[in-house]
Amino acid sequence: MTRLPIRLEKSVYIAASASAAGKNEKEGPLGGSFDVTSDDDRFGQDTWEKSESEMQRLALDAALGKAGFAPSSLDAVFAGDLLNQCVASNFGLLPFGIPFFGLYGACSTAAEGLILASLLCGAGAKRCAAVTSSHFCSAERQFRFPLEYGGQRTPTAQWTVTAAGAFVLTDDREDAGTDASVKAIPRIAAVMPGIAVDRGIDDLSNMGAAMAPAAADTLTRYFSAGADPGEFDLIVTGDLGREGSAILCDLIASTGRDIRRNHVDCGLLIYDCDGTDRHAGGSGCGCSASVMASNILSNVRAGVLKRVLFVGTGALMSPLTVNQKGTIPGIAHLCDITGEVTK
Amino acid sequence: MTRLPIRLEKSVYIAASASAAGKNEKEGPLGGSFDVTSDDDRFGQDTWEKSESEMQRLALDAALGKAGFAPSSLDAVFAGDLLNQCVASNFGLLPFGIPFFGLYGACSTAAEGLILASLLCGAGAKRCAAVTSSHFCSAERQFRFPLEYGGQRTPTAQWTVTAAGAFVLTDDREDAGTDASVKAIPRIAAVMPGIAVDRGIDDLSNMGAAMAPAAADTLTRYFSAGADPGEFDLIVTGDLGREGSAILCDLIASTGRDIRRNHVDCGLLIYDCDGTDRHAGGSGCGCSASVMASNILSNVRAGVLKRVLFVGTGALMSPLTVNQKGTIPGIAHLCDITGEVTK
Repeated sequence: MTRLPIRLEKSVYIAASASAAGKNEKEGPLGGSFDVTSDDDRFGQDTWEKSESEMQRLALDAALGKAGFAPSSLDAVFAGDLLNQCVASNFGLLPFGIPFFGLYGACSTAAEGLILASLLCGAGAKRCAAVTSSHFCSAERQFRFPLEYGGQRTPTAQWTVTAAGAFVLTDDREDAGTDASVKAIPRIAAVMPGIAVDRGIDDLSNMGAAMAPAAADTLTRYFSAGADPGEFDLIVTGDLGREGSAILCDLIASTGRDIRRNHVDCGLLIYDCDGTDRHAGGSGCGCSASVMASNILSNVRAGVLKRVLFVGTGALMSPLTVNQKGTIPGIAHLCDITGEVTK
Repeated sequence: MTRLPIRLEKSVYIAASASAAGKNEKEGPLGGSFDVTSDDDRFGQDTWEKSESEMQRLALDAALGKAGFAPSSLDAVFAGDLLNQCVASNFGLLPFGIPFFGLYGACSTAAEGLILASLLCGAGAKRCAAVTSSHFCSAERQFRFPLEYGGQRTPTAQWTVTAAGAFVLTDDREDAGTDASVKAIPRIAAVMPGIAVDRGIDDLSNMGAAMAPAAADTLTRYFSAGADPGEFDLIVTGDLGREGSAILCDLIASTGRDIRRNHVDCGLLIYDCDGTDRHAGGSGCGCSASVMASNILSNVRAGVLKRVLFVGTGALMSPLTVNQKGTIPGIAHLCDITGEVTK
C-alpha cells in the first residue's frame, strides 16, 4: 500500500460525533450546529487551558451519549491539540479512563485521529474515538502575543477557533445507526496519511500558504490513485483559510484537475470573515474537528451529502523554530467518507 | 479486545533498530552499543533543537541501512518527542518523505510508536518505522532552567538523555533477517495501550513517582490477562529511574506478583548513577528508545534474551500545567517482544 490510499477492507463507521464551541463560533454561520457552547469561552473553568480540556471532555461525552456507548466500551481514544505537550487532551480525557494514544498533528489532528481510529477498528478493535481541540486564548498567548497586548493582525492571519470535536467509531454497522432520523451512516471508506511538505514559507501569519502545498500533495496522490474530484459532493479542507484555499485550488488546477466547484474550507465555513478580525478565516485543531463533527457529518447523516473527502491540514512549527528562522512545513491527512444509506 | 492485550494475528517483526547518542551516554555502561555518537552533543548543528532533529535523522538512516530498506519503501513513520509541537520529529524526519504520523506520548513515545507501527503492519502495511528522541540541552531549557543557571537537582530528579532511537518494522519474516549473525528475529507478539493514571503527584523533580502507578496499571492488566512475570527474561521499563522503579516493584508486589528478579529500567541501565549528577537515572523519550534499539534488541537478536516485556512510561504534563498547580498523570504502553529463532 506504499504511498497509496489505504482502502479499509472491513467497514468502519462513525457512530456519532459532537462538538463544543465558544461564543464567536456560536455567533457564526454554523452556530446552531454545535452541541455545547459557552458564552464566556470558559466552560466553567478558571484557566484557558482547563477550559480547552473541558471542551474535549464535553465533546467526547456528548458523542458517547449520542452513540449510546459507555466510555468503558471503547478500545482506544486518539487525541491531541496545539498546547505544549498536548495537555488539553491529556487532562481533558483523563476522567474517561480509556486507553489513550497521544497525537501531535497540529491542525490536522482531527484527520490524523480519524485515520488511526479507523485503522485500529479495521484491525480488530470494536470501538475507538478521536478527539481534538483548540482555544483562541490558550493558543494566542502560547503562539503569538499575550491577549492584553492587542497586537494587530495581518490580512493573511487566521483566527484560532475555540472548539473541540469528538468522533466515535465502530466496526459494526448495527452499532452505528440506532436513531430513526438518520438517513445514512458515515462510513470511512479509505484513508491516506500525509507526507510533510516544506516549500520554504516562514511567515507565522500565513499558515495557509505553508499548508496548501501539503494538501495539494495528498489530494494529487489520491486523485492519481483513481479518485476523480467530481465524485465528491464536497472536498473539505481544514484549515487553509482564504489565502491557502486559493493556493490549493491553483496548485490542483496546475495538475489539470478542478476542485473549485466542490471545495470548501472549514476555516471559511465557521466564521463570517468579511470586515471582521477573523481575516483569512478560522484555524486550530478545533476548527475542522467541530465543523466536521457537527455540520458536515450531520449533512451526511441527513442524506444531503453522499460522499465527502476530508483533508485535515497542519503546520509543523513551534514559536521557537520560527524564532530560529526555520521554515514551516505542512502536512495533510485524508479521509474519504461515504454516507451508507440505511434500510 | 477492550482493555485486553492486542495479540497480533499477523506476525510483525522488528527488522532493524538503531540509535544516536551524546557524550554522557557514550561514556556510560552501554556506550559501545550506540550506532552514532557526538562528542559535543551537537551532531554538527548550530542549535540544540536542530541537534535533536539530526539525531532522529541519523538513527532512522542507520536503521534503514541495517535493514536494507529504502525510505520510499516505508508506508508510514510514527514519531514524536518532548519539544513543544514535537519539532524534533517534524524537522528531523522531513528529508525522508515518508507518510508521517506525529505522536505525543512524552517518554512513552518509543513504546507508543512501536504499538501503532505494529498495528499498522498487522493491518496491511508492509513496512513502518517508529522514531523518537530527547536532548538534555533542548529539554532542560524548555522544562526547567536555562543551562547557564546551573540549578541544583534533587535526589529524585532524572537526567534527560541525549539520544534517539529508530525501529523499522515489517510484516514479512524474510524481509527481517538478512544477516547471518542474527540468531533470533524480534517479533512483536502483543501490545497493550496505556490508560492515563493520576495519583496526585505534582513534583516536577519526581517523575518516577508520577509514572510508576501507570506502569503498575498496565502490567497488572497484562498479567491478569494471562501472562506470568516469570515468563520474561526481562521486564524493561523506560524510564522510571531509581525512585519510580522501587515504587513499581512495591505496587506489583502488593498484587501478589514479583518482578524484582527480572525488572530493569532503561534510566538505570544507561548511566552509572552513583555519585554523579544523574541522580535517579536517565529519562526522556530517547532513553528507552536508544536502550531498546541498541542494547536490548541486540541481545534478543543474539539469542541472549528470548522474551522481553517493554513498558514505556510517560508523564503527561507541561511546565504550564505544573505552574498552574496541576498534577502529573502518567501513562505506560506495553510491547511483548519474542525472539523468533532463525533457521
